[in-house]
Amino acid sequence: MAHPYSERLQKLMKSFTKFPGIGPKSAERIVLHLLKQDRAQVEELARLISESKANTFFCERCNNLSEKKMCHICDDSNRDHTILCIVEEPKDVASLERTGSFNGVYHVLLGALSPLEGIGPRELRLERLVKRIGAGQIKEVILATNPNAEGDATAMYLAELLKPFGRIKVTRIARGVPIGSNIEYIDQATLQRALEGRTAV
Amino acid sequence: MAHPYSERLQKLMKSFTKFPGIGPKSAERIVLHLLKQDRAQVEELARLISESKANTFFCERCNNLSEKKMCHICDDSNRDHTILCIVEEPKDVASLERTGSFNGVYHVLLGALSPLEGIGPRELRLERLVKRIGAGQIKEVILATNPNAEGDATAMYLAELLKPFGRIKVTRIARGVPIGSNIEYIDQATLQRALEGRTAV
Repeated sequence: MAHPYSERLQKLMKSFTKFPGIGPKSAERIVLHLLKQDRAQVEELARLISESKANTFFCERCNNLSEKKMCHICDDSNRDHTILCIVEEPKDVASLERTGSFNGVYHVLLGALSPLEGIGPRELRLERLVKRIGAGQIKEVILATNPNAEGDATAMYLAELLKPFGRIKVTRIARGVPIGSNIEYIDQATLQRALEGRTAV
Repeated sequence: MAHPYSERLQKLMKSFTKFPGIGPKSAERIVLHLLKQDRAQVEELARLISESKANTFFCERCNNLSEKKMCHICDDSNRDHTILCIVEEPKDVASLERTGSFNGVYHVLLGALSPLEGIGPRELRLERLVKRIGAGQIKEVILATNPNAEGDATAMYLAELLKPFGRIKVTRIARGVPIGSNIEYIDQATLQRALEGRTAV
């Protein structure tokens, strides 16, 4: 039996199965849905994908996603640049921003400490973070890594690392967040509570 | 609060939510996953999407997806061109082909009769189908529309339509398939049984 789809379509379906949460059946539905859209829409999607990749960088200060050298948060003089919130991923910045209850700035680690995966302080470029904090403007650091094993270990490590900066208050988001979960999935109210209830480390 | 993602990324996320089964959260994950891939991979995906759309047409004989004027099934002289299987969508052809137990040819309606959605015999271009069947080569027609209200109505309508062709055997796939479901989700064994157990209408 010949495969029911052309090699090109098979390849496209396979590309989609590489995405999180998309299996072969979903990929098939996505591709067939694409083919039902009109040509202009499909071209627009292809262009958007290509341009998004070409124009999105990591902010040179905080590692957040940005179309400029510096992201719109770091570049915003209305934000409180004395409070730094440390998160694992850009999507965590998005989640915290959606609560509307944080007006400080961020640092995105782009990961968490994980000896099993070979991710140590060097991979997270923590020396760069320490340099940023050592520059003197920051008065409080909020550790908002995920409330799971890697995120907790990362928070503990960072708390130790920041001890020499005695004048800086180091806090961890409150344990209102369910243990073992991921920040991106937590509802806004819980996240807001976790920000408000932060405790000294 | 400014939106946490650039306008371009928001637009891309929104494009993905138009796909079946993809909500805002999945779209966010897909886009962030895209940005983590290397530039070449992303360009390849964009190119594949664009080329797939540009090079995929409906077979001029059966409406199946094809990169040529005629699909590889219609163009295959090893297939039995006297048995015609009528399905709703190209993905149904794919499902039936995967069973490996059908060696005839197909006709894809690209829909089913649905008065509520304004889809009647004209929208399904049934006159074209009748013309194809009237050409004389076909000896048996298998009605493999979905075993739900629209699919059953479509099968009944087609059976009536084909009555004048008394010499043609018209069958419906066996009711081994669960009522109310969609053909694309049925396991191969059940589909195979349904093909084998087809009954005269």
